[in-house]
Amino acid sequence: MDKKVDILVIGGSAAGTVAASTAKSKHPDKSILLVRKEAQAVVPCGIPYIFGTLGTSEKDVMPDTGLKNAGIDIRIDTITSIDKDKKIATFENGDTLVFDKLVLGTGSMPFKPGWLKGGALKNVFTIPKNKTYLDQLQNDLKDKKHITVVGAGFIGVEMSDELKKSGADVTLVEIQPRILGLAFDEEIALHAEENLKKDGVDVRVGVGVKEILGDTQVEKVLLSDDTTIKTDAVILSMGYRPNAELAKAMGLKLNDHGFISVDAYMRTSEKDIFAAGDCAEKRDFATSRVSTTMLASTAAAEARVAGLNLYSLSTYRSFKGTIGIYSTMIGETVYGVAGITEEAATKEGFAVIGSTFKGMDRHPGKLPGMHEQIVKLVVSKATGTILGGEVIGGESAGELINVLGVIIQTGSTINDVLTMQIGTQPMLTASPGKYPIIKAAEIASRNINGCCAPNEYC
Amino acid sequence: MDKKVDILVIGGSAAGTVAASTAKSKHPDKSILLVRKEAQAVVPCGIPYIFGTLGTSEKDVMPDTGLKNAGIDIRIDTITSIDKDKKIATFENGDTLVFDKLVLGTGSMPFKPGWLKGGALKNVFTIPKNKTYLDQLQNDLKDKKHITVVGAGFIGVEMSDELKKSGADVTLVEIQPRILGLAFDEEIALHAEENLKKDGVDVRVGVGVKEILGDTQVEKVLLSDDTTIKTDAVILSMGYRPNAELAKAMGLKLNDHGFISVDAYMRTSEKDIFAAGDCAEKRDFATSRVSTTMLASTAAAEARVAGLNLYSLSTYRSFKGTIGIYSTMIGETVYGVAGITEEAATKEGFAVIGSTFKGMDRHPGKLPGMHEQIVKLVVSKATGTILGGEVIGGESAGELINVLGVIIQTGSTINDVLTMQIGTQPMLTASPGKYPIIKAAEIASRNINGCCAPNEYC
Repeated sequence: MDKKVDILVIGGSAAGTVAASTAKSKHPDKSILLVRKEAQAVVPCGIPYIFGTLGTSEKDVMPDTGLKNAGIDIRIDTITSIDKDKKIATFENGDTLVFDKLVLGTGSMPFKPGWLKGGALKNVFTIPKNKTYLDQLQNDLKDKKHITVVGAGFIGVEMSDELKKSGADVTLVEIQPRILGLAFDEEIALHAEENLKKDGVDVRVGVGVKEILGDTQVEKVLLSDDTTIKTDAVILSMGYRPNAELAKAMGLKLNDHGFISVDAYMRTSEKDIFAAGDCAEKRDFATSRVSTTMLASTAAAEARVAGLNLYSLSTYRSFKGTIGIYSTMIGETVYGVAGITEEAATKEGFAVIGSTFKGMDRHPGKLPGMHEQIVKLVVSKATGTILGGEVIGGESAGELINVLGVIIQTGSTINDVLTMQIGTQPMLTASPGKYPIIKAAEIASRNINGCCAPNEYC
Repeated sequence: MDKKVDILVIGGSAAGTVAASTAKSKHPDKSILLVRKEAQAVVPCGIPYIFGTLGTSEKDVMPDTGLKNAGIDIRIDTITSIDKDKKIATFENGDTLVFDKLVLGTGSMPFKPGWLKGGALKNVFTIPKNKTYLDQLQNDLKDKKHITVVGAGFIGVEMSDELKKSGADVTLVEIQPRILGLAFDEEIALHAEENLKKDGVDVRVGVGVKEILGDTQVEKVLLSDDTTIKTDAVILSMGYRPNAELAKAMGLKLNDHGFISVDAYMRTSEKDIFAAGDCAEKRDFATSRVSTTMLASTAAAEARVAGLNLYSLSTYRSFKGTIGIYSTMIGETVYGVAGITEEAATKEGFAVIGSTFKGMDRHPGKLPGMHEQIVKLVVSKATGTILGGEVIGGESAGELINVLGVIIQTGSTINDVLTMQIGTQPMLTASPGKYPIIKAAEIASRNINGCCAPNEYC
């Protein structure tokens, strides 16, 4: 007789844990088993900090106590196949398990391009969400004087900054003309690049890696401009690809980018099978196009939707796509973005205006800890709807970008923002008269179609 | 021939400056004169910090450069009367000025109860927004070892904390059973009280001041429980009253609490006269009842509405009342509130549920600078609408309360919040799986009418 469980969750990172705990919260009577490969799961966004601020992966472990206390079972194992019609999962040792509902949170794997020569040399690494690998990596990097990081997305930038802090010489190579290029508009990305350089990272943009050179272990990196960098280790942070092997093998529909196809409630092509997180299909909030953005916060939101709708559609999904909300910190400066950039909006065909206000995050500005605070809004000229926003600031900018996130997700317009009430406090925020989101909206309203446009925003 | 100006603004604090700059931004062609009494205007919310962190009022001055650069004229003078029919203002020296539009931002004055015996003794002070007075106060407090602060609203609490930091022995007396009692629910207020005590402030709640004793100068404070406190100075922070003398004298309609009556566009009973800020009538966001809340951030929002609608109603006011959003800092801990408390909601007749989640403002929690982060939501049982929220946290809580503020102002429900996307970053926010606003919404959804209520929130 097969073992049975009501809800089987595969994956122990953001998607898996949130799906399991949300489902348990909604259905305390259902039995839930979470299966993951790793004995200890790492906090994914915390990984770069293992190599500097935290110092060890032990401080970046997601505790299992919350799940266990909620009555969720955890099994450290690998599921090798699933019969979706019979709803049976098979483990590596041949054990089988019958489930009623399945949530796939199988995540993503680092991308290592096949064309990259020398990728298999010793001391060439990637950043998987795997504690054993990361511990080995940290150990291997200990005696490395010079490290080259390839790919300047959030992980590459944070890794570079942290490795520099821990004493290494770091070169960051990015084939795009700027760092964080897909996430921010140019002026914000350049601001971040300047800060990263100030921290001592050697930033090389507009140049790709042609080949990794060495005998048995990496010695040099050959760049597309034919210069070489002498290096002791290479870290490839060239993006991630959805881990959809299991889904594919059981016959679930995947999209053209290899993500598991899902609807607005995270249901796959199979009635009782849901997917959430990096492995699941996403659609862009602004355009509804298929998107390849992967974020732990998006994974958590999707997992919550999955967990709440397993047995009946109880939570009307009021957003219709993924609004990427990111933030990062370089030195003492925070960079955040929500929604679409001006560049991306224009490319998509939106008629938008970008409006920027520069202020301070204390009032008066003479208070200690004051940091410059910049907000840029991306506003639809036709409707005044706020489609995106970017911020630069001190630590409070990490939540300031969430203020913008809610504004965007609720479809608010500059009119709404102009008459919006906010809370201000000398030590914590900008002044009431110069709250940067409102001031940027004021500038947008003045600039839309010159002053006093048909929509009368100015 | 009388001098003329298009827009006359009276008052140089949050309301006056924002009204003037908003009006100029919308109508660059109009001449604007801002008249204020003080040579230098202080940042109102910054006043408590003059007495500790800042050390001098010079660091708390609002610069005039922004207004002047925008082309707004400033006159340091007192307007003694206004003929509202002829639209003529008269200055102290008899000068007259004809205006087209008038904005009253005359603010508020500290309340000193008439029944309080000993209130006229030397070394009994209030906290007006007046630099000359504050400079004198700071000088007078220099040699005072023991200071008694009466009234534990935000200003009383911040003054106490700052005076204690600067070395004085401080007793804070509050007639209500708890500090900050009108703003927060009990458990949050008690948390704040504990912190204030930890900072060394002697907090006495549930006890009023009966009389201030002394010969020519204050020596003791006699409390309602007949105990006395030996003290060298008394600071009365017992609230503020609208400064509506000028409005009253010219025949504008005032409401029962002495505020200048206004509509949703800040228009007074007189067609071309607007009022904003502490002197102007407010209505509560949740109930539309007349409210006596005074906040610089509310003043700024109202002034923006006034400035945008002087010549035609161009900015549809999408909120229908004042949502108080406050935050303060005691020691290293931030307390914030937006909208209505559970206690006030229940008193008003709302059927609400309060749900609280306690987490951390970093992830993993082992990152340096981690602070406990608590969010309480006040949710309508009937509709799931979020009516209010309170937070405790580190510095980022100053913007976290604004995330809640936008959620409340847009009429969002717990369903909206459960499927809301947020941005998270290890050094800056809670984890994606434990973002406190979403977790508190999850708890609310589970608790509304037990599990699986008619509204299916859980």
